[in-house]
Amino acid sequence: MRSLFAKRINDIPKSFIREILKVIDNPEIISFAGGLPNPEFFPVEEIKEASNKVLAEDGTNVLQYSTTEGYLPLREYIADRYFKKQGLKISPEQILITNGSQQGLDLIGKTFLNEGDGLIIEEPGYLGAIQSFSFYRPKFNSVPLLEDGVDLEVLKDTLAENDCKLFYGVPNFQNPSGITYSDNKRRAVAKLLEESNTIFVEDDPYGELRFIGEDIPLIKNYLKDNTILLGSFSKIVAPAFRLGWVVMSMDKMEKAIVAKQASDLHSNYFAQRVIYQYLIDNDIDQHISRIKEVYGRQREMMVNSIKEYFPPEISFTEPEGGMFLWITLPKELSSLELFDMAIKEKVAFVPGSPFYVNGQGKNTLRLNYSNVAEEKIEEGIKSLAKVIKRAIN
Amino acid sequence: MRSLFAKRINDIPKSFIREILKVIDNPEIISFAGGLPNPEFFPVEEIKEASNKVLAEDGTNVLQYSTTEGYLPLREYIADRYFKKQGLKISPEQILITNGSQQGLDLIGKTFLNEGDGLIIEEPGYLGAIQSFSFYRPKFNSVPLLEDGVDLEVLKDTLAENDCKLFYGVPNFQNPSGITYSDNKRRAVAKLLEESNTIFVEDDPYGELRFIGEDIPLIKNYLKDNTILLGSFSKIVAPAFRLGWVVMSMDKMEKAIVAKQASDLHSNYFAQRVIYQYLIDNDIDQHISRIKEVYGRQREMMVNSIKEYFPPEISFTEPEGGMFLWITLPKELSSLELFDMAIKEKVAFVPGSPFYVNGQGKNTLRLNYSNVAEEKIEEGIKSLAKVIKRAIN
Repeated sequence: MRSLFAKRINDIPKSFIREILKVIDNPEIISFAGGLPNPEFFPVEEIKEASNKVLAEDGTNVLQYSTTEGYLPLREYIADRYFKKQGLKISPEQILITNGSQQGLDLIGKTFLNEGDGLIIEEPGYLGAIQSFSFYRPKFNSVPLLEDGVDLEVLKDTLAENDCKLFYGVPNFQNPSGITYSDNKRRAVAKLLEESNTIFVEDDPYGELRFIGEDIPLIKNYLKDNTILLGSFSKIVAPAFRLGWVVMSMDKMEKAIVAKQASDLHSNYFAQRVIYQYLIDNDIDQHISRIKEVYGRQREMMVNSIKEYFPPEISFTEPEGGMFLWITLPKELSSLELFDMAIKEKVAFVPGSPFYVNGQGKNTLRLNYSNVAEEKIEEGIKSLAKVIKRAIN
Repeated sequence: MRSLFAKRINDIPKSFIREILKVIDNPEIISFAGGLPNPEFFPVEEIKEASNKVLAEDGTNVLQYSTTEGYLPLREYIADRYFKKQGLKISPEQILITNGSQQGLDLIGKTFLNEGDGLIIEEPGYLGAIQSFSFYRPKFNSVPLLEDGVDLEVLKDTLAENDCKLFYGVPNFQNPSGITYSDNKRRAVAKLLEESNTIFVEDDPYGELRFIGEDIPLIKNYLKDNTILLGSFSKIVAPAFRLGWVVMSMDKMEKAIVAKQASDLHSNYFAQRVIYQYLIDNDIDQHISRIKEVYGRQREMMVNSIKEYFPPEISFTEPEGGMFLWITLPKELSSLELFDMAIKEKVAFVPGSPFYVNGQGKNTLRLNYSNVAEEKIEEGIKSLAKVIKRAIN
């Protein structure tokens, strides 16, 4: 008897976050669970102007089918920005517009992964990537994150013992941990991957959102064409457009374009035109500064509240950018059990275990600060502290 | 030595149409090659109004992340329309918003197809579906199209000799052939598929564009939950939005939502809101009437010109709707060779062989009439007739 469904779909972890977000759809709950940017900064008026402009000036074209690669001036804009910000020379032909970085991940799986191919992922790792890659049934190897990035000793052993095609990581303000790789670590990772001919999939949705310290070069600067780089407009403009991009060398890009075409022909062309118009008519750097200023304050409020209210057994990360912070509870505590208690106290978070591919992390959890008003952050952390203390005793 | 790319990607036919469209990017060429709707009917002004309205009324929400399933009122609208037009009872929960029907095809492959699973496709079949499904490495079985739909005898034998999980077809004004299944044929197909427990993937992007004869019920009316139905706003509103949908029973939908989430989280939410606003603020039926009126005239002009200028050895379909018409040349002619001759005469078409999974169809070709001005159609057909006559002699 044949099975109705493909085997691959039975391997997929159900999105726990999705389920959680359903539970906490209650305005009384202070939610640190989401991964949403703060809508206060969505440039509604500017998007309206951009949209009116492209429709008025080129209406029939902006509503027609377009090329799989994406709108060329938008790809040129992205290439220019990499050069200005990072000194990275990338040609627009090496950029493919995708439906958010999430589609970039899917296209990477589709283009590169055979069943059983070795894939390294950070521990904890980004849930959306675990889900997306799982469809291609790779062999996951996870490498723990230390304070300054991935554990090099474990990475070295993993590369020696396994044939790993890809290493997926988020070196800037990682989701879920908020950890950033130091420059030394980036260089060391690049060197190890170069030696083992492993491609680094460098996901960088938060890179522009640094509010403490100095920017550090992308690993692509060191590993060059052995890197596939992902970016997104979701965190710096607006997520609804589902516009991101993936950067890869031309030999890889030729195949990825075929994968993109088979997946959905091309990304929403109207949205590409609107975003481009918005970017050239506005000062995006000023816009990003405003976001960073507020996220920085929200992060500070959360870190200070944790220091004030949490018991000393709790350890936590102190992110220099991005949207998330990571909590490690004493070993014997379960964040899943804590979740039910927390909901009763009207505060929510994401339990950590779904971010592990090896069943670990039961005593960890993720907190988001970008989408919670400053004044609510202290209140929520206070409630959470109460729940943690109760669980410890 | 491991291979850089996934095996699946080496199986994919390069999009011939894509290559062709590059060749004919010359305004002097009369192109019957594209598959584009006529941009004259894109509701530019109405889309502008809808966009301004949703941004003014609910700006921060329309720019935020949203649900994987899609905007509920839009799914309700689609469900209502199926009931009004077809008497089909579909609940909004059975509808998933996708990036055009193309993504629907990819999600079906992802959710249902294991390598080697039997898949039936029409001969000739829709190229985008062949490409999309090829990524999941099914065993293709093609069944020829007759004037009133698929050849039932061959279908019966194919089902008897192979374990076929899916049958993909376009019963209304098929791409590429323009053929429509008769009602009797639809009933017979449903019966055969029911007996073999094969799911019919009913792709219906052109169903609303009938300009001759009466609407015929969808096969879903007869095969019920053993059907997966695909629809799209690309041909009735505008393609740039990349908004389509897929309808399936809840047991299937639960899995397809996981596939969609892993693929790109959700479709462009801003675009969903704009399209919905457009649909409720405007008379879409009147809009579709205008499209049908013009496409009908364009189709008539093409059919009449073919009758007048083509030599009698050429056979062709006379579509009752949609955008395409299919030409069969004498067996010894190659439409690929004809293509090069035609380009010199400044007329273009799509050679037929890429629409076959079995290497057949070398003497066939596809003509599009929807995106060519009426006065150019006669001129282009005249040039093409000249080329065909030269090739015959």
